[in-house]
Amino acid sequence: MSGYYRIALDVMGGDYGSGITLSGAAMALKSMPELFLLLVGKQAEIESGLATNGIHGDLLNRIKIVNAASVVTMDEKATSILKEKKDSSIRIAAECVRKGDAHGMVSMGHTGAAMVASMKVIGKLSGVYRPCLATVLPNFKGTPTVLLDVGANIDCKSGHIAQFALMGAVYAEEVLGVPEPKIGVLSVGEEDGKGSDTTRQALDALRTLDINFVGNAEGRDIWNGNFNVVACDGFVGNVVLKSSEALAESVFGGLKVCLRSNLLSRMGALLVRPAMRKFYKKLDYAEYGGAPLLGVRGISIIGHGRSNERAVYSAIRAATRGAKNNINGRIQERLLHLLHTSKETETA
Amino acid sequence: MSGYYRIALDVMGGDYGSGITLSGAAMALKSMPELFLLLVGKQAEIESGLATNGIHGDLLNRIKIVNAASVVTMDEKATSILKEKKDSSIRIAAECVRKGDAHGMVSMGHTGAAMVASMKVIGKLSGVYRPCLATVLPNFKGTPTVLLDVGANIDCKSGHIAQFALMGAVYAEEVLGVPEPKIGVLSVGEEDGKGSDTTRQALDALRTLDINFVGNAEGRDIWNGNFNVVACDGFVGNVVLKSSEALAESVFGGLKVCLRSNLLSRMGALLVRPAMRKFYKKLDYAEYGGAPLLGVRGISIIGHGRSNERAVYSAIRAATRGAKNNINGRIQERLLHLLHTSKETETA
Repeated sequence: MSGYYRIALDVMGGDYGSGITLSGAAMALKSMPELFLLLVGKQAEIESGLATNGIHGDLLNRIKIVNAASVVTMDEKATSILKEKKDSSIRIAAECVRKGDAHGMVSMGHTGAAMVASMKVIGKLSGVYRPCLATVLPNFKGTPTVLLDVGANIDCKSGHIAQFALMGAVYAEEVLGVPEPKIGVLSVGEEDGKGSDTTRQALDALRTLDINFVGNAEGRDIWNGNFNVVACDGFVGNVVLKSSEALAESVFGGLKVCLRSNLLSRMGALLVRPAMRKFYKKLDYAEYGGAPLLGVRGISIIGHGRSNERAVYSAIRAATRGAKNNINGRIQERLLHLLHTSKETETA
Repeated sequence: MSGYYRIALDVMGGDYGSGITLSGAAMALKSMPELFLLLVGKQAEIESGLATNGIHGDLLNRIKIVNAASVVTMDEKATSILKEKKDSSIRIAAECVRKGDAHGMVSMGHTGAAMVASMKVIGKLSGVYRPCLATVLPNFKGTPTVLLDVGANIDCKSGHIAQFALMGAVYAEEVLGVPEPKIGVLSVGEEDGKGSDTTRQALDALRTLDINFVGNAEGRDIWNGNFNVVACDGFVGNVVLKSSEALAESVFGGLKVCLRSNLLSRMGALLVRPAMRKFYKKLDYAEYGGAPLLGVRGISIIGHGRSNERAVYSAIRAATRGAKNNINGRIQERLLHLLHTSKETETA
């Protein structure tokens, strides 16, 4: 197994069942020869699903099944993995990372449980105040924007937000391949003076560093491609993410209804369908591979429950790139600069 | 003039010029016989624009021109109305309210200047910690949602947010005509325990009142019609509003490009156009009449700079309804209950 980038994949998570997850795993194994997958979940179910979902022949040399007797269901508490669900696929995947059997984990299961497993089982990276959850948002310019934190940390100090910005920048560079990402702190106006006390202090700390720090980003900058990294506390990030998802769903849903509303528009809809497909594709979350939890001692990628096989593949690809490009080493380097420059003003 | 609801209209604000504003004024005068308008701005420009924009005949009995020598331009500071721009139309409109010549003001001009004029010239309503800016968001259910504060107050305590919720509820009832509006505090999860220290305390204060308080609203609830009032601090509200505007513009913009991308889809677009128009109309901001600044000693409605005549009309209608239904009296009643129940836990 040495020489490979080893990723523990929670096969049991995901709303569409283990088949879709294994298909995504097959895509990933085929396109990344340096990938070794620990398939974590119910042994019999995984074994019986391998061949039918494209994992056969040589690919079998780069997988290992790791049995996990249970699954965290959506109605269970996130902390169940610490007590009654120690034998769950999410917990076992995290154990693989903790023990050094895997560089990282990927789960499309219970988001809260995956976060708890990453923080409590894998543990915090040294030098990190608080791990944070990032999300990669698409836009029409085709330049992804990393928004973080989107919910791991509700009440934040400026030092936390500054760290989030640096961790997001490393992710943008090393995993998304954005050279010198444009970094911003989410605020209510462009000028340095605008914002809360907390965001202004975060801005001051980041201004001292040798990074491509632009300054304050406004709400609109999350979608216009002007920034590659937008840092905020987990309260604001969560609200913006959930409201954006609902707005987009509502607009696309309303559009569908309107296109079916009468015969003329139904005919028109047939004609515009190919162009519409292309349009949706540009905004496809599946390309960007889930939400990384940054700042843990390993890679942790939390996929959407509704991940299709391409989204599973993208999440595994993100974890693999993260391991290959040593994002945690790069994060620690970056944070060191911040600690040195900001220790006088900030106790986190 | 007695018996009329008197609104001071800043005729000079608005990106499309005084003609559009006067047309909106004409619509308002025609549909609301109890309305009297003080048209504030450059006397000669207003006089020469009256007839051509539909203000003639009997309507002239319900207007009065109030001369203002200057206009606040977009590149000027909001506080200019306190010093060098004391003779601006925004400042003079606010003076009309302060002196009691008008019940309220409407401006489509410089948003910051209109806020400063409302707070510093008209002044705070007694019992209000801080006035706040509300916005009325449309959704496909056709049940408007009042989101507030969207930018007047950046760092907020729980008592501020609780007051915003009550002021928003009065606006929803008395101006938008929503009976027993469903009220929420914007947070990161449904359960009472979710949120920041500040939002949890606001929730506790509101739970004690005899109002239709649902509890925490999540980001998605801004768009799904499940809440009529969503209260938050001005930082979060501003970021959500600006990111939503940008997302919607980006989706509609991308859609246009996609529909023009080839001959087939251009033909299809012609067929779907009538249905699309209806679709846009449902989301039309122009229906809801701008952003009210709640908690000042008078009515103050701040319209979009890009208001068309219908949006100007709606803003005047909102101001008129606010005056007619005595929203400030109702706000003071409501706040009294909050003060009585929350004074032990809260010093604002």
